[in-house]
Amino acid sequence: MRWAEGFIAVDWGTTNRRAWRIGADGAVADRMEDDKGVLSVPAGGFGHAVAEIAARLGDRPMLLAGMVGSNRGWREAPYVPCPAGLPELAGRLEWVELGRIAIVPGVSLDAGDAADVMRGEEVQVLGAYAEGLIGGDATVCHPGTHNKWIRLEDGRIAGFRTVMTGEMFSLLSGHSILADLLAGRAAPGPAFEAGVRRGLEGAELTAELFSVRARVLLGKARREDAPSFTSGLLIGADLRTGLALAGAGPVSVMGRPDLTGLFAAALALAGRPAQELEGEDAFLCGARHLAELIQ
Amino acid sequence: MRWAEGFIAVDWGTTNRRAWRIGADGAVADRMEDDKGVLSVPAGGFGHAVAEIAARLGDRPMLLAGMVGSNRGWREAPYVPCPAGLPELAGRLEWVELGRIAIVPGVSLDAGDAADVMRGEEVQVLGAYAEGLIGGDATVCHPGTHNKWIRLEDGRIAGFRTVMTGEMFSLLSGHSILADLLAGRAAPGPAFEAGVRRGLEGAELTAELFSVRARVLLGKARREDAPSFTSGLLIGADLRTGLALAGAGPVSVMGRPDLTGLFAAALALAGRPAQELEGEDAFLCGARHLAELIQ
Repeated sequence: MRWAEGFIAVDWGTTNRRAWRIGADGAVADRMEDDKGVLSVPAGGFGHAVAEIAARLGDRPMLLAGMVGSNRGWREAPYVPCPAGLPELAGRLEWVELGRIAIVPGVSLDAGDAADVMRGEEVQVLGAYAEGLIGGDATVCHPGTHNKWIRLEDGRIAGFRTVMTGEMFSLLSGHSILADLLAGRAAPGPAFEAGVRRGLEGAELTAELFSVRARVLLGKARREDAPSFTSGLLIGADLRTGLALAGAGPVSVMGRPDLTGLFAAALALAGRPAQELEGEDAFLCGARHLAELIQ
Repeated sequence: MRWAEGFIAVDWGTTNRRAWRIGADGAVADRMEDDKGVLSVPAGGFGHAVAEIAARLGDRPMLLAGMVGSNRGWREAPYVPCPAGLPELAGRLEWVELGRIAIVPGVSLDAGDAADVMRGEEVQVLGAYAEGLIGGDATVCHPGTHNKWIRLEDGRIAGFRTVMTGEMFSLLSGHSILADLLAGRAAPGPAFEAGVRRGLEGAELTAELFSVRARVLLGKARREDAPSFTSGLLIGADLRTGLALAGAGPVSVMGRPDLTGLFAAALALAGRPAQELEGEDAFLCGARHLAELIQ
């Protein structure tokens, strides 16, 4: 019954980690966040990295989710195949220390030609469902480095598709011929909307992206509009993929508020109502419900 | 009449430069190549960088083409708008030293929503036409960092579209989550062909690219096939853009033989016959015909 007395939930991604101490009443008692993502931990260094969290937040049972369970993480927690709900995840926890430290498995899709994987988003999406924030049959869009479009059926993840929208924007702004044009911040507005429309129309990205530069060179577009237009273009293309997978009805957009805002604005242009949900809240819901299933 | 006695032609790109001494008989008498691309020359350093070429190949009139005429180069040679043929380029040379050193202008497209620019490829394409290697009404595909699809009408560049295929592969293999999968070399074969077909079908690139990784993680695709599949996918998407612009009849694929081979293989899958042309030969044809127009 130790988990009912409180535990620590950790969302441990590639480039950063966040951890919360959940009290016996289910409320957040303390929290921490730093940039010690999975890629920054040396081989054999996870024991120490976890001890840092315990030293900071207290010695409690610990539930770890995200890339910490990948082959680049602490210990690989094999994917649970779709359809996957919280009971399937709870039944396939990877126990690093039995009863004390568990890694949540990711979810995989392997159906004919389709193949996809996720680690971390499943806790948020299934947590939001368990908490009643979204229905059991829903479409979730989870923007981030890798956006996930997720179909929930009967409260379980039935299928999903990953789109590299965030990573693509980062590659272009960091290393491409568009880098100097993309130094600014993307924001909703006319340039963003024009980009979304081009993406929704099915413009070929590798061609359309060069046009961003050419239009500025020829004085047909404003340099300062390039980040918003390009973000819109990538998100519009992303929506083409996601809406082909989505059922009817509203789309729940879950994640960081700056990203969910952009995706909700793009969905409005596509004529689809969107419900925005804070990813951190959803993660904590998922962690609490998983902890209940452990006991 | 000094140009008729021989001159030096320079193809000066972003990352390297190639120069040839053309004799009075039009044949290549000597040549050089190094990695002193435009980006490696410091501000104010072009006089010295050009003197190196003269010291190596002889003191002759000099015709420079490529990014050396851009705002990052020696001196900006304003774009000639479409339709542009060799006479238009010759009439708009940027003379750094009158009668002795000229920079060839690039070509721009500015038509309604369409905007595009090129620097360097125009010499090759118009040179191939002037030499009779391609007809006056032709479609040219010029793969490279930025592939150019070019429509020639009556021997002039009537329109064109740039696709960032080469740069995208380089971004993905250098900096993305696919980097370790893309370390190998792309080559024609079944994996390449499967990628081309996906691209021709209109698969959304940002979604399809993540699937490359997921299929390997789930054991549905071989790791060593990832470079060829990904190259095929990008080239297939590129062809969708280019063939929408192309007229009927064969496509002339011009450039480096390793790249023209991949594009010709992809065009065959799209049911379009392709004629491969060596870009260096075409450049020398263009330089010779431009030199004739100077006299």
